[in-house]
Amino acid sequence: MLPPNPTTAPRGGGVWREDVALERIATLLGGASSRVAPLGWGDDAAVFDRPGGRVLLCTDAAVAGIHLDVEQFPIEDLGYRAAIATLSDLAAMGASPLGVVVAICAPGDVDVIEIEAAVVAACAAHGCTVAGGDLSRSATPTVTVAALGEERAGRTVTRAGASAGDVVFVTGPLGGAAAGLRRRREGASLHDATVLCHRRPVARIAEGEAAARSGATAMIDVSDGIARDLRRVAAASGVGVELDDVPVRRGATMDEALGGGEDYELVVTHPEPEQLEADFAAAGLRAPLRVGTVVSDPSALTIRGDRLPDIGWRH
Amino acid sequence: MLPPNPTTAPRGGGVWREDVALERIATLLGGASSRVAPLGWGDDAAVFDRPGGRVLLCTDAAVAGIHLDVEQFPIEDLGYRAAIATLSDLAAMGASPLGVVVAICAPGDVDVIEIEAAVVAACAAHGCTVAGGDLSRSATPTVTVAALGEERAGRTVTRAGASAGDVVFVTGPLGGAAAGLRRRREGASLHDATVLCHRRPVARIAEGEAAARSGATAMIDVSDGIARDLRRVAAASGVGVELDDVPVRRGATMDEALGGGEDYELVVTHPEPEQLEADFAAAGLRAPLRVGTVVSDPSALTIRGDRLPDIGWRH
Repeated sequence: MLPPNPTTAPRGGGVWREDVALERIATLLGGASSRVAPLGWGDDAAVFDRPGGRVLLCTDAAVAGIHLDVEQFPIEDLGYRAAIATLSDLAAMGASPLGVVVAICAPGDVDVIEIEAAVVAACAAHGCTVAGGDLSRSATPTVTVAALGEERAGRTVTRAGASAGDVVFVTGPLGGAAAGLRRRREGASLHDATVLCHRRPVARIAEGEAAARSGATAMIDVSDGIARDLRRVAAASGVGVELDDVPVRRGATMDEALGGGEDYELVVTHPEPEQLEADFAAAGLRAPLRVGTVVSDPSALTIRGDRLPDIGWRH
Repeated sequence: MLPPNPTTAPRGGGVWREDVALERIATLLGGASSRVAPLGWGDDAAVFDRPGGRVLLCTDAAVAGIHLDVEQFPIEDLGYRAAIATLSDLAAMGASPLGVVVAICAPGDVDVIEIEAAVVAACAAHGCTVAGGDLSRSATPTVTVAALGEERAGRTVTRAGASAGDVVFVTGPLGGAAAGLRRRREGASLHDATVLCHRRPVARIAEGEAAARSGATAMIDVSDGIARDLRRVAAASGVGVELDDVPVRRGATMDEALGGGEDYELVVTHPEPEQLEADFAAAGLRAPLRVGTVVSDPSALTIRGDRLPDIGWRH
């Protein structure tokens, strides 16, 4: 239905890459008239201005064999992780979840009730409910969660607001999810603490809301690895980032911390670091960790003076 | 995570049926605390009371090979039909769409841009936009659409309000989608008018809103065949239905009209039939068709005095 555009994405018969396809889709959507605020595809959630306050909508799909190693983990983990990925998109905008709907597609011999129960548990752990959904047969187990959120902080934070001089924070140590996958493949129990980082991640809802209230200029959740996700903030904001260090979770490697993804900690930029730290403390939250500085040169993406490696999860 | 319940659904290793699994899931969700209005799973969309008015959220997944015969139809039709199925769920509650998010999962050789463009086209044809989404690799092409809607009619209509004496309406003739699939398999062109009933169905947004304003007591969209969908209204409302006739689309059979599904016309019950007809006329809509009467005996489900056949789409 669109004219071929071989310079940005291969056509049928070729192979598409998520980031390239998303760029083409953003162009496609940009042409449509819209009643939504101009924060659509390309940020973490879509924003709808409503008489009683903004609501946000986002979705994430988790596919067996792509987002879950089904040889190593029970299929219910696909549901838990799909829910967290979606709730984390709300957190990254500073929003809080009102509820989710979930579509589960699976073969007849997969226990869809276990998957649904895991989605319910993930939502309950983050103060929201599963309000409905759909079920279908499919050869490939797939869980797609859509979340409705509300703006409680009085503002929404996108990827696009970082300015030179802002301090870059991360809400917690990174690499746990990748290390958990590695440890499981090495034989660790499903209940190993690091393996649980992979199976039962946490969406930083309270941290996102506190950061939005505190005046954060940009946010993103670490879903594809901080190296890749920071590039997205830099590109959307037209700035560079100089990282001093990255906090590595115990048991994880620096590569896992930089490129592993699915940790769902938030990256936050803020012009007044002491303010963010004070606001997190006042909210009873773990102190955010200073990791670097926003700089004006968009080509500057460094860690300890070296070029930030281009590693991370490509879907 | 749940205790086995062999009386209602087989466990892992068995085979699940959508209706049985949905019942178990409804039980699962019923136990969770909720900030949503009590109209969750089991109706067409979930309802959230907001300061500025109710919003609704629903989702539908369309799977290649299950919801689309990929030997006969281009893959973009999977996107179009997924969008319509979801928008129709809003229509069946009397709500209007604000926007959708779409998750597309597909192998690398499937043109996801074509699918996305079809979702955009379906939404544009119904006055809403695609506000965001997700892309993932998957061996099985799957399109999951979640729609956010608003209550413009000042009320929401569920499946549960039909009362004895209400007249049963349908918003248009049935069987076109099933007949279109049959004709395509018999060799008809993709652009054949009946085949297009299958490929490009219409969600009855304006009709749903008009029926809600007019005082409809119950509604459902014909997604699985009127025989099956009417049973759902009857069960939710605790009533029976005596059908006089069913309008059959030109080119379709009575079996296709009763059991074919995916026509997305609305079934509406209303205590004052002339009122509904007048309100549809005033809104410039095609006259709704009287098809039967609601009766108090829940065991009465008949067509022209015969038992309504238990046919229809089982997922």
